[in-house]
Amino acid sequence: MRKPSSHSEFELIHRFFASPNLSFPREGIELGIGDDAALVDVPSNKHLAMSMDVLISDIHFPAEADPSLIANRALAVNLSDLAAMGAEPYCFTLGLVLPQNDEAWLADFSGGLEHLAKKYNCPLVGGDTSRGPLSISIQVQGLVDRDRAARRSGAKEGDRIYVSGTLGDGAIALLALGLDSHLGSEFSLTVNEPNAACLQFFEDAYFKPQPQIEFASNAAKLFSSCIDISDGLQGDLQHILDESEVAGNIRLGDIPYSKSAMCCVNPENRLLAALFGGDDYELCFTVAEKDCVELESIADQLGIRVTCVGGITAGEGIEYLDADGSPVGLNPQAFQHFSAQA
Amino acid sequence: MRKPSSHSEFELIHRFFASPNLSFPREGIELGIGDDAALVDVPSNKHLAMSMDVLISDIHFPAEADPSLIANRALAVNLSDLAAMGAEPYCFTLGLVLPQNDEAWLADFSGGLEHLAKKYNCPLVGGDTSRGPLSISIQVQGLVDRDRAARRSGAKEGDRIYVSGTLGDGAIALLALGLDSHLGSEFSLTVNEPNAACLQFFEDAYFKPQPQIEFASNAAKLFSSCIDISDGLQGDLQHILDESEVAGNIRLGDIPYSKSAMCCVNPENRLLAALFGGDDYELCFTVAEKDCVELESIADQLGIRVTCVGGITAGEGIEYLDADGSPVGLNPQAFQHFSAQA
Repeated sequence: MRKPSSHSEFELIHRFFASPNLSFPREGIELGIGDDAALVDVPSNKHLAMSMDVLISDIHFPAEADPSLIANRALAVNLSDLAAMGAEPYCFTLGLVLPQNDEAWLADFSGGLEHLAKKYNCPLVGGDTSRGPLSISIQVQGLVDRDRAARRSGAKEGDRIYVSGTLGDGAIALLALGLDSHLGSEFSLTVNEPNAACLQFFEDAYFKPQPQIEFASNAAKLFSSCIDISDGLQGDLQHILDESEVAGNIRLGDIPYSKSAMCCVNPENRLLAALFGGDDYELCFTVAEKDCVELESIADQLGIRVTCVGGITAGEGIEYLDADGSPVGLNPQAFQHFSAQA
Repeated sequence: MRKPSSHSEFELIHRFFASPNLSFPREGIELGIGDDAALVDVPSNKHLAMSMDVLISDIHFPAEADPSLIANRALAVNLSDLAAMGAEPYCFTLGLVLPQNDEAWLADFSGGLEHLAKKYNCPLVGGDTSRGPLSISIQVQGLVDRDRAARRSGAKEGDRIYVSGTLGDGAIALLALGLDSHLGSEFSLTVNEPNAACLQFFEDAYFKPQPQIEFASNAAKLFSSCIDISDGLQGDLQHILDESEVAGNIRLGDIPYSKSAMCCVNPENRLLAALFGGDDYELCFTVAEKDCVELESIADQLGIRVTCVGGITAGEGIEYLDADGSPVGLNPQAFQHFSAQA
């Protein structure tokens, strides 16, 4: 048992994390880094939303990647959980485990947190550091109007199912970046190597997912339910259906794909990526039919692509439909295989 | 890159963590485990206190230890940070990284969290699980009256310095349990093997530190500053002195030791353990002279041992005093060595 060297830990925290660029003041943050606990206020008309994600080296990110990209991804995937509640980012804490005290790595890593922290006025207020196998625990705190939180449990028969952005890019990015995917050996690119534009697109999709904070904070009042797509549309929509005790259908032809996904992957694998890939950090949400015009108008004003991909019905489970509205039998083997894994 | 199997993760969370014994309802917890984020209320006269500690296998606990003891230790050291702010525990989140899906281990581990969670009405409200090298990230949330938080920065010249409980037991426990200590090869027991009573005492000191929640919530109104002793009295008192911009003196003869520490370790090593050992999770706090009678009376009523070990003075640094009040030159070599490490 080696007690961590807390003197050097203390210095390290102060140099790289208790910096004005990262642990900056914000209204309501009474006390940040430097005491036994951070102290924050929560306005009486708000709930505090809290979500923790742990990212493990070589599982959730390649250990050798640019530390600033790792940092961006780690904070972005956490912020995406706040977006899925319709919450506004408030502050975050960081538990960083590092194999050694690598100052260059730390400088890049803390620099990589700054962009999203500043963009969303979400300062670092505390946490812990330790020696050990590289991992990153982040807990984000957000504020959401007490009656406006977008839960998974509110979808109702007749609601429409929407997704933001395009799906499958997170999973296809693994292929483009030469990383392993859990989708099996047939999940592959149709090109030997993506062109420079596609490569950049997928690198950004993987390391710089855009949490849909702004869209959600404007539109969540119209969501009857919401989840962020971290495990693939099939699994994440199923969480909404389970919590809401309803069924849903998805029109496969309406699933939105990026130009790069169209360019680099065949239709079967695009579908696999969208349904079972995950790592998209887009939102899947349901909206009552009467609210859909307003919803699409909000998205339009913000320049956010939203696509109605299906609807909520009675019963349980997901039915997949073709362009005519006829049920599609997805390859049952693949379906079962990835359903069990996803 | 292996995407974690989130289906089994989901099941695992529900079986072991979303249980009525651990994620129980509590007033103010609007939404716990099972959505993209937990939602909690914070009364308008309270601050929310937040503290995160990351515990790494074989650094902060022996990997092979009883999982329920590991769990107890992990939650206790986090709750100790809330005690150091004078905050009442509210809820906690858990980021658990496990090498494999070991159901017996998980059952014991989640069972080990239940005792303190129930004792302090502090339910588990969210978190994350992943495969990887064993580690435990816990963030505790607490509530503290807005004007009552016990910070490190309020110590004033003339205040008395107190500690709760006895010091050094956490460090001596490492020796008693056969674990490595960072205090060097001369830091050893005076007995070949502690007797059964001492062994049990040290096992409890290590795995079941008692966070001073109840005492702090009653007495923190009288603290001018407070910190929990996780790194040893020298380093932790120094944090108070730094933040408060004052100096302090410690009467070495007044440092309180347990019977087991007196039984198993010589005076030099007891002092080393108290000043530089850490892991005691007792409180070091300062109290204005006029409040000391009331403070000691509160401690007395709760059956908590508190000991005045010195006082706050002008200047900087810590002066050590013998029984006559004369400055003591601690062995400068040991002092420097452990000051640099502590």
